[in-house]
Amino acid sequence: MEFSSKLIEKAVNEISQLPGIGKRSALRLVLHLLKQPKEQTGFLAQALVNMREDIKYCTNCHNISDSTICEICANKNRNHQIVCVVEDIRDVMAIENTGQFRGVYHVLGGKISPIDGVGPSQLRIATLVEKVKSGSINEVIFALSSTMEGDTTNFYIYKQIADAAIVISTIARGIAVGDELEYADEVTLGRSILQRVPFEKSFKNN
Amino acid sequence: MEFSSKLIEKAVNEISQLPGIGKRSALRLVLHLLKQPKEQTGFLAQALVNMREDIKYCTNCHNISDSTICEICANKNRNHQIVCVVEDIRDVMAIENTGQFRGVYHVLGGKISPIDGVGPSQLRIATLVEKVKSGSINEVIFALSSTMEGDTTNFYIYKQIADAAIVISTIARGIAVGDELEYADEVTLGRSILQRVPFEKSFKNN
Repeated sequence: MEFSSKLIEKAVNEISQLPGIGKRSALRLVLHLLKQPKEQTGFLAQALVNMREDIKYCTNCHNISDSTICEICANKNRNHQIVCVVEDIRDVMAIENTGQFRGVYHVLGGKISPIDGVGPSQLRIATLVEKVKSGSINEVIFALSSTMEGDTTNFYIYKQIADAAIVISTIARGIAVGDELEYADEVTLGRSILQRVPFEKSFKNN
Repeated sequence: MEFSSKLIEKAVNEISQLPGIGKRSALRLVLHLLKQPKEQTGFLAQALVNMREDIKYCTNCHNISDSTICEICANKNRNHQIVCVVEDIRDVMAIENTGQFRGVYHVLGGKISPIDGVGPSQLRIATLVEKVKSGSINEVIFALSSTMEGDTTNFYIYKQIADAAIVISTIARGIAVGDELEYADEVTLGRSILQRVPFEKSFKNN
């Protein structure tokens, strides 16, 4: 792509480094910004810089936060003895949206993935093991996605905390609510039969 | 969506104002930037601000440019008597890529579209009419997309320059090179028959 303006070229190159945005889409975004008032671009740039510069991570659970202890960890009404292990802030948001979990989180910041060059040392695993060893936790719930990487990460952590006197659980796998049985894959359907639950439990919350 | 951080929320809100980017995609982009070095976000923000603040439009053809006269208009080897009317910089780039056009452009900055609230006064039509009236032009080529809005814009301009002693042409419509006849729509196929060209012309450039 040849541009008639170096400024456009530079902006397009920077935008197209973002995942899922190619040069054409980047040019479309740039032309959109040019049609909007100058302030909009200013606000966008400022929000990005502020976000990147001032973002903090909760020292307890490593979730993204505006303060050194996030709102969830600072909440005394939550059960700090139950820790849900998740990959990133999106998973925290998704679980919070269900309104079913009153414990706290531990955000790993990724999954073990040799292909992407992510090893255990790049994840926040050590602090989780410490928490468990300190004896302040009753239960660890693994809530990583059930992929190869997720399972590997679960197992890696499990091996380090298996001898602690705590409950180690994982979120239930099964047929999604509203899904048709016939379209489910065999592994999921198989697990949902093996891990069947008492019927009375299935329509009660908690 | 509820965010654990106001900084994240603000960045997501600003990004999701861009066309085609929803809140989920915006959050994905923000999390990507958080994993990259701080400089990348800085460069991105700076490129956007520089682009929006310092961008110039060629005073002759209204194309985006880094100087007051764009490279194409400043090029003495091009034929300044043939003016190709296009919608925006993307069309200029597309036509330049073909290498088939040695005239100059006139960038309207959009198409007449009452639904989007774009009237003739918001487009750079007056300066085109002036150029034609000044007698410095031999030919005007309409190269807008052949939609309702494109045709309306063509016709609006045509009415204002029809009495000038110049050639007014429009880019050829027809079956795209490599396309199968059977899948072409009737209007395109019909036009391509009515506007057939001598065979010897069809395999020569220019």
